[in-house]
Amino acid sequence: MITVYLAGPEVFLPDGRAILEAKRTVLRDYGLEPVSPPAEFRDQAKGSCMERGLEISRRNEQLVRLGDACIANLTPFRGPSADAGTVYELGFAAALGKLVTSYSNDATLYSHRVQDAINAGADLREDSGDLWALDGMRVENHGMADNLMLAGGVLTRGGQVHVPGHVATDLWRDLDTFTQAVRDLAQI
Amino acid sequence: MITVYLAGPEVFLPDGRAILEAKRTVLRDYGLEPVSPPAEFRDQAKGSCMERGLEISRRNEQLVRLGDACIANLTPFRGPSADAGTVYELGFAAALGKLVTSYSNDATLYSHRVQDAINAGADLREDSGDLWALDGMRVENHGMADNLMLAGGVLTRGGQVHVPGHVATDLWRDLDTFTQAVRDLAQI
Repeated sequence: MITVYLAGPEVFLPDGRAILEAKRTVLRDYGLEPVSPPAEFRDQAKGSCMERGLEISRRNEQLVRLGDACIANLTPFRGPSADAGTVYELGFAAALGKLVTSYSNDATLYSHRVQDAINAGADLREDSGDLWALDGMRVENHGMADNLMLAGGVLTRGGQVHVPGHVATDLWRDLDTFTQAVRDLAQI
Repeated sequence: MITVYLAGPEVFLPDGRAILEAKRTVLRDYGLEPVSPPAEFRDQAKGSCMERGLEISRRNEQLVRLGDACIANLTPFRGPSADAGTVYELGFAAALGKLVTSYSNDATLYSHRVQDAINAGADLREDSGDLWALDGMRVENHGMADNLMLAGGVLTRGGQVHVPGHVATDLWRDLDTFTQAVRDLAQI
């Protein structure tokens, strides 16, 4: 049975535990198994705030290693790109040769989100085929859902960046697109 | 001689080539060698914008593999966290067992930047030891420079998130803190 590490920023939501439990149920519905923390991980991390952070980082890396696959929630988080921790874990899983796939509940292109976030409605400037934002920086223009390393990393490995065909009713709790990613993974 | 992959968003700057060349010079000054693209990488990526994106993604992954080490520029990019592509490469390098270290030209804590970006000056709400932003989401409070997976990933492997003791004169072109990271790496 394929074991799956769920990478995503749900841990930052007030009802994150419930959302993650719902996602684990979807995995099981499709015959996949969520990665379970080994017994020694069951305790809360202890120590100073920095020590706790380091301990959680090591635990999460270990959990990624334990899984056969990783599904990354790339829904934009506090900016036009996905949550940084999720992205780190996606890169980590890809390098380990895990099955990787992903989804985002925001179907807009990365370049459009940068336009919204940085240019606040003004068009991006086009120059010699490149797009530029008002922050003076180039905007990736590869027709991808996020930075090309993320999208490329999953696409190169046979995964997808699944996006909704409709506007998600709730960016963090609508599991339709996640379920699509799970269904695809279960068919491998 | 230790070969080093430079992960960072310089490619999005109008003078990115010059900045990267300056960074490579610093590496050589300290006896390190920047990863050189193999000959077959010298051509520009071809094809549709999506195909070019995929090709760049594969090339960058290959370059990370070629290096013994990776120095990630975690200076916040279009939000409170580092550039997503850089973070992916950092996770990728960490999983491959590379020497990893990093720097940011912004010395503020991640929690402070979220406060600035999301709360726009209002204090974060504290509840049972957790910090919450006005977007309804928890804010990591581990005294770290960015998401704990990034900071934890490098610290666990003996690397650092070097930050400036002063305010960087130019977030993208001040190489003092980068040089500090290089100096540390050269002493391993």
